[in-house]
Amino acid sequence: MKQQPKELWEKQLSREYLYRGKIVNLRRDLVRLPGREEPASREIVEHPGAVAILALDGERRVAFVRQYRHAAGRVLLEVPAGKLEAGEEPLQCARRELAEETGCRGGEWSRLTWFYSSPGFCDEKIHLFLARGVLPGELAAADDDEVLEPVWLALGEALRLLQEGTICDGKTIIALQFAASLKV
Amino acid sequence: MKQQPKELWEKQLSREYLYRGKIVNLRRDLVRLPGREEPASREIVEHPGAVAILALDGERRVAFVRQYRHAAGRVLLEVPAGKLEAGEEPLQCARRELAEETGCRGGEWSRLTWFYSSPGFCDEKIHLFLARGVLPGELAAADDDEVLEPVWLALGEALRLLQEGTICDGKTIIALQFAASLKV
Repeated sequence: MKQQPKELWEKQLSREYLYRGKIVNLRRDLVRLPGREEPASREIVEHPGAVAILALDGERRVAFVRQYRHAAGRVLLEVPAGKLEAGEEPLQCARRELAEETGCRGGEWSRLTWFYSSPGFCDEKIHLFLARGVLPGELAAADDDEVLEPVWLALGEALRLLQEGTICDGKTIIALQFAASLKV
Repeated sequence: MKQQPKELWEKQLSREYLYRGKIVNLRRDLVRLPGREEPASREIVEHPGAVAILALDGERRVAFVRQYRHAAGRVLLEVPAGKLEAGEEPLQCARRELAEETGCRGGEWSRLTWFYSSPGFCDEKIHLFLARGVLPGELAAADDDEVLEPVWLALGEALRLLQEGTICDGKTIIALQFAASLKV
């Protein structure tokens, strides 16, 4: 898997920015596919990247946030998460986001994995961290444009919500599947 | 979780399309947050939705595709997947995509789950299916703008690649975590 085989690689011919926004940019690139004459176009959403945190307190309760997601048109139950700021290290971002969204501090931190959320059209990478034994604390002032509610659920209850399909956010499913498999 | 609490809901004030493309649209909406005077803007990527398939043959080998992803700038190993066409049912789409990408037909199909890939800015839903006992067949002609390579891996080998972090596509991680937990 280390070497990229020549026969799949696409050569970029041009790059055009259609929008530069607050959170995302949108590009349309032309690429040449291996063995094809005609160029193909690729719509690419650029995203700064994000972190997500599987945080457990001393009683094996899992931290969640309930948040209205305008893209989904509904309230979702998700693990704490947030976007990387310019130059910010993923672990530093994860500690900041967990504190901002749940008030928690401390804990033993480790990195679980990272993944592309939807690599067919978007470059967003999500870095997933585990924080065990976090300590409750004061909620800091929320972001200006975010309203959310922290929720703590026993790990077993969280896994039940996962199994019954109540949880429908990709990064949260991955975090809880890790929780189930790691026996954290 | 059934009822959406009033205090999180955002009221949409306006909607403006910035781009209507081949695969994605981009909107910028203004919303009013609960308890806030100033409207907030939301950049939303519209996507038709997608399917992904955890397909196993009679020897418990898992179907993958290797594909260059321009957004990632590299070749990724992913479970077979594809976008919904207009009016297409997810199961019908999943059967079509599996046949197109691997040549497989038949098998016992069931729905595993669905999820938002990145609901902070995108409405893409991914419907994940399980297909057991699929039968190898002839590869149909590929999409005009896709070049990919089907790969079959023993389930144990696939789970090893998951554990070592070689697999870094969200939907593929979810599919393999299901495979591990379901003992398929």
